[in-house]
Amino acid sequence: MTDIVQAPLVGIVMGSRSDWETMQHAAVRLEALGIPHEVRVVSAHRTPDVLFDYAANAAARGLRAIIAGAGGAAHLPGMLASKTAVPVLGVPVQSKALNGMDSLLSIVQMPAGVPVATFAIGNAGAANAALFAAAMLAVEYPAIGEALDAFRTRQTNDVASNDDPRQ
Amino acid sequence: MTDIVQAPLVGIVMGSRSDWETMQHAAVRLEALGIPHEVRVVSAHRTPDVLFDYAANAAARGLRAIIAGAGGAAHLPGMLASKTAVPVLGVPVQSKALNGMDSLLSIVQMPAGVPVATFAIGNAGAANAALFAAAMLAVEYPAIGEALDAFRTRQTNDVASNDDPRQ
Amino acid sequence: MTDIVQAPLVGIVMGSRSDWETMQHAAVRLEALGIPHEVRVVSAHRTPDVLFDYAANAAARGLRAIIAGAGGAAHLPGMLASKTAVPVLGVPVQSKALNGMDSLLSIVQMPAGVPVATFAIGNAGAANAALFAAAMLAVEYPAIGEALDAFRTRQTNDVASNDDPRQ
Amino acid sequence: MTDIVQAPLVGIVMGSRSDWETMQHAAVRLEALGIPHEVRVVSAHRTPDVLFDYAANAAARGLRAIIAGAGGAAHLPGMLASKTAVPVLGVPVQSKALNGMDSLLSIVQMPAGVPVATFAIGNAGAANAALFAAAMLAVEYPAIGEALDAFRTRQTNDVASNDDPRQ
Amino acid sequence: MTDIVQAPLVGIVMGSRSDWETMQHAAVRLEALGIPHEVRVVSAHRTPDVLFDYAANAAARGLRAIIAGAGGAAHLPGMLASKTAVPVLGVPVQSKALNGMDSLLSIVQMPAGVPVATFAIGNAGAANAALFAAAMLAVEYPAIGEALDAFRTRQTNDVASNDDPRQ
Amino acid sequence: MTDIVQAPLVGIVMGSRSDWETMQHAAVRLEALGIPHEVRVVSAHRTPDVLFDYAANAAARGLRAIIAGAGGAAHLPGMLASKTAVPVLGVPVQSKALNGMDSLLSIVQMPAGVPVATFAIGNAGAANAALFAAAMLAVEYPAIGEALDAFRTRQTNDVASNDDPRQ
Amino acid sequence: MTDIVQAPLVGIVMGSRSDWETMQHAAVRLEALGIPHEVRVVSAHRTPDVLFDYAANAAARGLRAIIAGAGGAAHLPGMLASKTAVPVLGVPVQSKALNGMDSLLSIVQMPAGVPVATFAIGNAGAANAALFAAAMLAVEYPAIGEALDAFRTRQTNDVASNDDPRQ
Amino acid sequence: MTDIVQAPLVGIVMGSRSDWETMQHAAVRLEALGIPHEVRVVSAHRTPDVLFDYAANAAARGLRAIIAGAGGAAHLPGMLASKTAVPVLGVPVQSKALNGMDSLLSIVQMPAGVPVATFAIGNAGAANAALFAAAMLAVEYPAIGEALDAFRTRQTNDVASNDDPRQ
Repeated sequence: MTDIVQAPLVGIVMGSRSDWETMQHAAVRLEALGIPHEVRVVSAHRTPDVLFDYAANAAARGLRAIIAGAGGAAHLPGMLASKTAVPVLGVPVQSKALNGMDSLLSIVQMPAGVPVATFAIGNAGAANAALFAAAMLAVEYPAIGEALDAFRTRQTNDVASNDDPRQ
Repeated sequence: MTDIVQAPLVGIVMGSRSDWETMQHAAVRLEALGIPHEVRVVSAHRTPDVLFDYAANAAARGLRAIIAGAGGAAHLPGMLASKTAVPVLGVPVQSKALNGMDSLLSIVQMPAGVPVATFAIGNAGAANAALFAAAMLAVEYPAIGEALDAFRTRQTNDVASNDDPRQ
Repeated sequence: MTDIVQAPLVGIVMGSRSDWETMQHAAVRLEALGIPHEVRVVSAHRTPDVLFDYAANAAARGLRAIIAGAGGAAHLPGMLASKTAVPVLGVPVQSKALNGMDSLLSIVQMPAGVPVATFAIGNAGAANAALFAAAMLAVEYPAIGEALDAFRTRQTNDVASNDDPRQ
Repeated sequence: MTDIVQAPLVGIVMGSRSDWETMQHAAVRLEALGIPHEVRVVSAHRTPDVLFDYAANAAARGLRAIIAGAGGAAHLPGMLASKTAVPVLGVPVQSKALNGMDSLLSIVQMPAGVPVATFAIGNAGAANAALFAAAMLAVEYPAIGEALDAFRTRQTNDVASNDDPRQ
Repeated sequence: MTDIVQAPLVGIVMGSRSDWETMQHAAVRLEALGIPHEVRVVSAHRTPDVLFDYAANAAARGLRAIIAGAGGAAHLPGMLASKTAVPVLGVPVQSKALNGMDSLLSIVQMPAGVPVATFAIGNAGAANAALFAAAMLAVEYPAIGEALDAFRTRQTNDVASNDDPRQ
Repeated sequence: MTDIVQAPLVGIVMGSRSDWETMQHAAVRLEALGIPHEVRVVSAHRTPDVLFDYAANAAARGLRAIIAGAGGAAHLPGMLASKTAVPVLGVPVQSKALNGMDSLLSIVQMPAGVPVATFAIGNAGAANAALFAAAMLAVEYPAIGEALDAFRTRQTNDVASNDDPRQ
Repeated sequence: MTDIVQAPLVGIVMGSRSDWETMQHAAVRLEALGIPHEVRVVSAHRTPDVLFDYAANAAARGLRAIIAGAGGAAHLPGMLASKTAVPVLGVPVQSKALNGMDSLLSIVQMPAGVPVATFAIGNAGAANAALFAAAMLAVEYPAIGEALDAFRTRQTNDVASNDDPRQ
Repeated sequence: MTDIVQAPLVGIVMGSRSDWETMQHAAVRLEALGIPHEVRVVSAHRTPDVLFDYAANAAARGLRAIIAGAGGAAHLPGMLASKTAVPVLGVPVQSKALNGMDSLLSIVQMPAGVPVATFAIGNAGAANAALFAAAMLAVEYPAIGEALDAFRTRQTNDVASNDDPRQ
């Protein structure tokens, strides 16, 4: 397990256990790229003190990025970003009534001064947050950069070599 | 000034100075109803620790309600509600690009467990949050109840006695 | 049954029987917090006179709050609020075509002068309206305040002690 | 003035004086078609009893249609319709923050059982409600039908005879 | 069958056969109120000439109202209204991708000069268009007015006598 | 004037004179590319017979494309397309209340069987409809193709040679 | 297979294999009208170089139109149009969270200078893009024009001869 | 000028000169934090080859991040990301008709595999993209991290020390 062997470089946090169905797509991608990471449920509304502690200690614990997923009035990414300068990558989880439009606007429409890098609603956003974290880490960790390049090449080849949808 | 004479019963907080144009409609209404209150700029994103302290001390300081206005990814009302059981009344401030739809969804779509009572976008919402606070206080403070009743009667009479829009 | 033992402090009303699926989340929560309440179907459009009577008598009957759920062109909460100064908590029920966006806007966008405290679309909104009512009642009824605090502590602990979504 | 000579056949009501800017387009059109009418401000939220009386007496007073304009959480048309079988024509007034989308959904999304005939947001909707009322009255009042036909012919000719936009 | 015994007073038309699932709710209601009617599929886009003929002959054939349902870029109600002064009642059929928001806007946002009375998206709108037609016909046909009153009383009693949603 | 010298290949039609402010961007572009065209106000709702005649005769008159602009419940493009197989290019004109979202959905959401090629809301859409018409005509009229290529090359060079926005 | 017998006149491309479920409706229609075509998966984001080559060679390869379908942040149609003057017909594929509203806006809101002809979200849009391509080709290929006319006549007759939805 | 002294670490690109009004907020912020950067107009639609070259050479030229702003059907950020693994930060520019909702969805809703980190619509998004770039660079360039920390502390102090909006 990567959490044991190496200190995590990326933290995946989410507002509720039910978000894991979405956020696992970030974990799977980080795992595949060999990026040590940790996974936690941290609720902005139900465990605000845990959220503050997590953010306040993120830099000292060596986290290079936090991937935060939440739905509805999604305050988790923005509040993490208010407490740490470690880059926060926000993933809007698809909500029941409004299909994630509430999640998206709650995350992306941050005021000037405290950025959250926002990705697509749902699984694609979770996967892309992981890929973006890899791109950020590639300068410092060339192996991650190579893994990312290999992934990109492979996905390009997969499409190009298999481009007749009728088969 | 009510702030001096009596401990405030209601706190009006807002995410930025520019929200005052909206939130003053809450202050004017509280003033007219004789409800001691205080006014503060508290930014969820730029002063998260102040927000936490404000919320954590609200009950002990005697606040019976907090009226919180914010725009865009409006996290202030929800984060106050996460740190205090004092009722939080949220006012979505009209934002520039999305006309307050982002503010509204960021405030109203709270997950089960941590409520924020939400009012209309803009000035009407600010005024109504104050009237709602008055209704909450009316049980304990009969004078506020009487002031509120008088206000409601007056506004009914104003419309009824003046119902030809061509004059 | 709480309705028999004590006069209800909170009235839960809804526009149609089908709204009960949503509104029961308010009843369950009030029950758990020991708040006497009653439940009624009152349709703004099909039984307007019942609505008016209900609202006109709410204060005299001892109701401290009315939780009103409705969907589509949801006029029930606002019309209750027009006839009583008892605080009205509105719950937008998720509608078929527009997923509750119509319900939300019909409830939250009240004009200045007559407030409705609005909560999230659907089950979360119903549950939170009940929690908000509890917070309002906590000043007068310390036992309710204690029950609310216990609920909040428990939900915080539940998240904090169970924060690995992979288990 | 038509109000003096004949009992009004159509009532134009609106939720606030500021709606007159929109609703005058209904009055102008009724006037031009020779339809006796009256104009009143009736607020669903601030004068609910007046609203109920107005609706309850509409049929007995000889009204054949009520044109009701309101903005935001626009409950006026629907509540009139709940209290009278006289046809209610709803006009969504353009609201400040949400441009009348809230007004439209609050009026048009009525549940089965109580209809409100809804027209476009703003001035066009007010004018069209009047034209629709004329079409309804045309069976009983041939002169109105003739005036309406003349109007329709004239507007067709105006476009057809003047169809080069560069002149 | 009413179509045989009496000339139809109301025409129900729809853009495609699949709209019948929605529009039957208008037919059922007209049937129950004893209103002679006819039912036709008339496509604005696939049978424009039929549409024009239908509208052009509506008044001469004795139709007092046309209930027109369509989805997506719903042009049927508006084009009927462009060709006849007979009142057109538009029903937005719920569309697949946009849930009927496209249908609603395509029907309700008519320019000044040519009104379409619009009802709610889907089944409720179809039923209400029929009820509205009944209200229009009530002046000329007292039996319809009585049937409508009986329906309204019955639906009020049904709600009032059965107002505990837990049973 | 191109209208005199040559039979028009493209017809620009619009629902009202006020749409000319938008639609002139199509005319300017056609003019610059040397494409003979005509300009007409044709209202789907106020002059439906003119619309039908225009569409029915379009092919015989030699029109290769019709650019149709309209706002709100924009039925003009779709109804033209229902009456002619000549390609119809729809331009959603920006409406007052809903900023052209109603125009866009009314034009683009055509049912299977009758296509309207839709372009962006407002001026850009009008200009692009003209450029698209040019691309369609380029096969048959090489001079138009050359003019279009020159335009595209010029706009590419304009951006590339002038790419410092601070100057 | 048409691809073998004749050089394709129309290219159908799509951003991912899963779009085929939608885009096959274009292929079926082209096939029925006897229009030689080819089908390819070309991803704007995963195979940008393939996209550029495809567009750059489209004219030389004899393509008269490209039908491009994509969902979400749908860049394929616009980027094809940036690289070729061959007419590009865009089909917004219905996306999971936002039902294709994101796809529609990403395709239709092109800036002035580079047009994409946009059709309805989903299957209807795909079918209509094919019909539109046929209309474009009808001038040069009379047989296609005849097939299109036959299709239009047939669909008109199908509706007209079968216009009782109750059967 | 930073461009001269040092190779740029960040590229600011935008789809048109008019986007500079928004994107200058990124440049101002980078300048203040001492981050070497360059500014270019690169249009996805009008200069696609320039876009491809810019992206293809970004890594080799030493760029650590690209901040890309665009409006409407905003394809610039996503297409840059398709051609380089250098992190792309997307800024939705507020569009005329749809207020930037089209820009936002066109940028943020990227499919899995090619991420674009998206920020708020308009000026706040541009400023935050710059701050995010600074946070990314802080690991490698401690001086940037210190400048960022100083900025964050200063903005916190500014709010905290100036928290009475009435003064």
